[in-house]
Amino acid sequence: MILVMKNGATTEEIETTSKRIREWGHEVTLAKGEFQTVMGIIGDKQDLAGKPLHTLPGVDKVLEVSAPYKKASRAFHPDDTVIDVNGVKIGGGYRSVIAGPCSVDSYDNLILIAKAVKNAGATMLRGGAFKPRTSPYSFQGKGHEGLEMLAEVRRETGLPIVTELMSEKDIDLVYQYADVIQIGARNMQNFALLKEIGKLGKPVILKNGIASTVQEHLMSVEYVMSGGLNDVIIALRGTRSYETAMRNSLDVGIVPYMQKLTHLPIIIDPSHSAGKREFVSSLAYAGMAIGADGAIIEVHPCPSCALSDGDQALLPEDFAYLMDKISKLQPWNQRDWSKNFGKMQNSKFGDTK
Amino acid sequence: MILVMKNGATTEEIETTSKRIREWGHEVTLAKGEFQTVMGIIGDKQDLAGKPLHTLPGVDKVLEVSAPYKKASRAFHPDDTVIDVNGVKIGGGYRSVIAGPCSVDSYDNLILIAKAVKNAGATMLRGGAFKPRTSPYSFQGKGHEGLEMLAEVRRETGLPIVTELMSEKDIDLVYQYADVIQIGARNMQNFALLKEIGKLGKPVILKNGIASTVQEHLMSVEYVMSGGLNDVIIALRGTRSYETAMRNSLDVGIVPYMQKLTHLPIIIDPSHSAGKREFVSSLAYAGMAIGADGAIIEVHPCPSCALSDGDQALLPEDFAYLMDKISKLQPWNQRDWSKNFGKMQNSKFGDTK
Amino acid sequence: MILVMKNGATTEEIETTSKRIREWGHEVTLAKGEFQTVMGIIGDKQDLAGKPLHTLPGVDKVLEVSAPYKKASRAFHPDDTVIDVNGVKIGGGYRSVIAGPCSVDSYDNLILIAKAVKNAGATMLRGGAFKPRTSPYSFQGKGHEGLEMLAEVRRETGLPIVTELMSEKDIDLVYQYADVIQIGARNMQNFALLKEIGKLGKPVILKNGIASTVQEHLMSVEYVMSGGLNDVIIALRGTRSYETAMRNSLDVGIVPYMQKLTHLPIIIDPSHSAGKREFVSSLAYAGMAIGADGAIIEVHPCPSCALSDGDQALLPEDFAYLMDKISKLQPWNQRDWSKNFGKMQNSKFGDTK
Amino acid sequence: MILVMKNGATTEEIETTSKRIREWGHEVTLAKGEFQTVMGIIGDKQDLAGKPLHTLPGVDKVLEVSAPYKKASRAFHPDDTVIDVNGVKIGGGYRSVIAGPCSVDSYDNLILIAKAVKNAGATMLRGGAFKPRTSPYSFQGKGHEGLEMLAEVRRETGLPIVTELMSEKDIDLVYQYADVIQIGARNMQNFALLKEIGKLGKPVILKNGIASTVQEHLMSVEYVMSGGLNDVIIALRGTRSYETAMRNSLDVGIVPYMQKLTHLPIIIDPSHSAGKREFVSSLAYAGMAIGADGAIIEVHPCPSCALSDGDQALLPEDFAYLMDKISKLQPWNQRDWSKNFGKMQNSKFGDTK
Repeated sequence: MILVMKNGATTEEIETTSKRIREWGHEVTLAKGEFQTVMGIIGDKQDLAGKPLHTLPGVDKVLEVSAPYKKASRAFHPDDTVIDVNGVKIGGGYRSVIAGPCSVDSYDNLILIAKAVKNAGATMLRGGAFKPRTSPYSFQGKGHEGLEMLAEVRRETGLPIVTELMSEKDIDLVYQYADVIQIGARNMQNFALLKEIGKLGKPVILKNGIASTVQEHLMSVEYVMSGGLNDVIIALRGTRSYETAMRNSLDVGIVPYMQKLTHLPIIIDPSHSAGKREFVSSLAYAGMAIGADGAIIEVHPCPSCALSDGDQALLPEDFAYLMDKISKLQPWNQRDWSKNFGKMQNSKFGDTK
Repeated sequence: MILVMKNGATTEEIETTSKRIREWGHEVTLAKGEFQTVMGIIGDKQDLAGKPLHTLPGVDKVLEVSAPYKKASRAFHPDDTVIDVNGVKIGGGYRSVIAGPCSVDSYDNLILIAKAVKNAGATMLRGGAFKPRTSPYSFQGKGHEGLEMLAEVRRETGLPIVTELMSEKDIDLVYQYADVIQIGARNMQNFALLKEIGKLGKPVILKNGIASTVQEHLMSVEYVMSGGLNDVIIALRGTRSYETAMRNSLDVGIVPYMQKLTHLPIIIDPSHSAGKREFVSSLAYAGMAIGADGAIIEVHPCPSCALSDGDQALLPEDFAYLMDKISKLQPWNQRDWSKNFGKMQNSKFGDTK
Repeated sequence: MILVMKNGATTEEIETTSKRIREWGHEVTLAKGEFQTVMGIIGDKQDLAGKPLHTLPGVDKVLEVSAPYKKASRAFHPDDTVIDVNGVKIGGGYRSVIAGPCSVDSYDNLILIAKAVKNAGATMLRGGAFKPRTSPYSFQGKGHEGLEMLAEVRRETGLPIVTELMSEKDIDLVYQYADVIQIGARNMQNFALLKEIGKLGKPVILKNGIASTVQEHLMSVEYVMSGGLNDVIIALRGTRSYETAMRNSLDVGIVPYMQKLTHLPIIIDPSHSAGKREFVSSLAYAGMAIGADGAIIEVHPCPSCALSDGDQALLPEDFAYLMDKISKLQPWNQRDWSKNFGKMQNSKFGDTK
Repeated sequence: MILVMKNGATTEEIETTSKRIREWGHEVTLAKGEFQTVMGIIGDKQDLAGKPLHTLPGVDKVLEVSAPYKKASRAFHPDDTVIDVNGVKIGGGYRSVIAGPCSVDSYDNLILIAKAVKNAGATMLRGGAFKPRTSPYSFQGKGHEGLEMLAEVRRETGLPIVTELMSEKDIDLVYQYADVIQIGARNMQNFALLKEIGKLGKPVILKNGIASTVQEHLMSVEYVMSGGLNDVIIALRGTRSYETAMRNSLDVGIVPYMQKLTHLPIIIDPSHSAGKREFVSSLAYAGMAIGADGAIIEVHPCPSCALSDGDQALLPEDFAYLMDKISKLQPWNQRDWSKNFGKMQNSKFGDTK
């Protein structure tokens, strides 16, 4: 943390502020300029979280220097985390595509989809039994019955199940069936829920909020990890923008950006980002091209019969076409690039004096 | 709802789509243009929620004509709702300012603040016992102990208590103490929680989400009301923008805009909007000027000691200064204006042929 | 400026970077922490603009401490600037409302509007002769003929004329007629145009860009002022947001925020912000309540005949109603508040030790 | 266009409104529902631009059905436009990468960069002689001298020159040197400038504005094309968001989205989008993967010596590494996909009754 003192902050103010910070157990270094004094605070950032730094005497600005998350940070865990879900690996070079319907509607559709996506190369099955819907009058999911269908299809196909958890009171039920717990955009900062699942043993996919920052997303990951769980998959489903071309705006540049900050696997959700079947596949391709560790994609054989989000569902044939293209794609490797990036700081071209 | 068919949609597509909609129990009207056909759907909008209109054959766009909420809508309840909290009224011309600390920290501070804000004209006391914090390492609230302090201060001052509920599992505890239940930005779409509190009997303040639309906010209100509760106060706490001048961006024009759409009381939260003590009062004044039914304002005698959000807390003297200014202010009355607005459609000036 | 060096920046990197900055003529102070070194740069900020600070060896982040504008800054000109337009004053406690049609369409409408708004209390007349329209097929303004009408109406009413300049090649023509030159949102960063008008002698109203920051807006003001002109009026016309309730989102809290940063008059443009006649007046009232130095408001006797932006035009009667309400309004005085703000740093309540 | 009438609009209002539209020369069709009437307007959309539809009696909402641009639209020009710049083709399957320094600083650097990027596969040279800078105190470009250097380097390398035009008064000068005229984000709605260059004969690259919509971008293209020019290249340089991870937010999904709407070539600008050298290459790779017709990329041998935007410049070696990867990449072909998309409307899987 850096405190920039006000122009004209008095010696007394500077001393009072330094003293207070030292009382909290942190070292302070001072850089006094002609007009402005800057104070550096050293020590464990987690201890400073929530301290009223802005209100200390003479303080003008508080500038954050290092990340406020710890367990999620690559600084504390330099190697990529590889998560194993019933033998399916993701992260650290293992790529995995999760596919399935938005909502579980019927057993017949579910088994048809599961076989089709498995055949095309998907390694896990997604399907919502509890659905967060903007309107209370929209279909809210099949609940327990949907979970039973998922379990039955897992028995037949061997695909691990990814399903959404929306409520603390459904924890026991959902954990009985799911292999991976999905937390959606609307609950990204439902901290009560995040704390609970961090104490439990199953891998979690945590999507970003509708307009969360990268840092807030990582702080919510930290909530889960602070409970003890290490297996968190970060999912990017786009964020809200004024532009309505896509349902949400997914900047795939965030993938390498976050790979630098965290050791956890990062997947993209092109279905919720594009929002229209027509653009889901191309966006999925771009996201895999830039080096995402996987994708979560909605597939349905009859989009106009789907009980939710039919608009953005790929047909099974679409999905097979996409998976074929992805299998031939050489993804960008930011780690390799970074090695070169490091080496090339002193270009052999030009003047770098 | 209006369906705009694709250029070149076939007669067969148009008939299939009309037929499907009629099977769902809705009337259809057609307007055929030279290139484009437009289909109007008549009937209860709630029944259409979640139907896969976009995926019907030949459909290009789905345009929403009327609001998807019902109980929250002024169309279904033309008169202003007045909410009574232990004798304190809000809505329909009754204005009410809620004030208190962000977090409850100590009994001594709480009673001091409560007396000061009551003396200045506040009619309810706010104070957080459970705090949603971006970092798991920040202060999370005093919990049960904080609720006890609030109850004790209510006994001494008579001020009704407004406090935040963050978790389904705290419902029993919080309802035992609170007079008004506050749901914060991060839980605006925690639908599981909204459904539960809609079944219970206490008034609710529902803040907008960090980047929610007006319509999403009203849909979340509808979630609460669909459980049976009528007493919902809508709070505007600003939304996220690229601009960092204020902590959030509060467009006070939303106040009259929402007053047109809903019969419920609308209050502003200048503390979270401005985010800095220096601009909280002026923003509160502007919000009351435009006709908000009230405000919820953070006050603390020692911002640099506050355990959360000290930056945005008014001092008790600041609050008294603000309340004095507000008491002398003539708020804008959009209803009066609208009467004129109606009458003046045919201006006596100019050419309106 | 503050440079935060990378974790593990070498002594050599730190020295190379310090040396380079000293070569540019700036003092450097160092604060070395256990892990991180922070470098403060002292000297004229204008000299540092455009220097490649991010690329110096070992630099992780560049943090801006003071404003990059100078002539627009209150730091360099503590007293409010009062601008005098043919005897009409604005700024430093003088409030002025500018009103008139979006586009000049006919002499008859213009004189009718001018007399009506003057009668209601407006002190200047606005009217566009050159119109920036999103579509090349929309009405582009009456041009020279429109300017002639404005001049004729000025002769009759005495109201100074405010009109938009869109093109460098129209400078001579527009300056021949206008009293105040308006630069619209789309040209806020048309730097070629800004430089030209900064060399000329007439007051300028500079609106913010569709999604500009406060700082970018002030930098564009600085472009004008760097040419020599002091008379710049800052106009806030709202910014783009995902929310479509209002045409643009105007956070009136920006008014006191900018009053702190700059000495120049700040006016609001509720017509372009609200975008609908129904909400223009309430928003104008809120903006004047928070202490804006004025407003620029579109008025037309027959909105459905207007050649542009009829939707947002007030009728003359609406405008008279609004001006009556504004005349009875006690605006917030941020300067008075700030005096109290200063004094109240040590509250008599609570523990501030 | 579709007009949705207010609930309770009178027969008289509906007739007055229909009559007015018919007087403008447009056909009207009516769909009367139980509560609401919807009016379809048929005829040339360009004629309706700027008509005050919102203000007609009884009108509640105006819904735009078809695009307001014409010459830029794929509807009017189904085949891809291929632009030829001195023999270098772009569009319709021809991909072209433009590279060079942000600003032209010295002949030695420029020739070094030009040879390096040509060697790596770039087909045109970019370089700014006139620079739009947020601060008037930043380096503003070498002007005429810079153009001379570009011409000299063209003579030596044969690479066509792309350079920015910022001002109407520089048109003659810039057209004397440039092969392709670049219009930057800040001038995307400098309509006076767009009109002028549309009358001239050289190809234009038009970048999107800092927060423009896709439709506004295409309307600005239409401004250029309405002057007669057909050779417009659309460049996506990202838009402003609250997220600061990247300098701007580039949703590459916009590439196939715009390819559907327009026949013109679409290129990406990963340098301004990512804003940091470290992420420029990965973003460029993703943009080429999704099917962009090209990219414009900043390259400099000594970023810390660059006079502008050194932060985002690739080293020549970086650029060569990137071009090698791009050359091996199979780009997504949305046109092929769309053919399948069409065929697959009736999936062989599932129930599509």
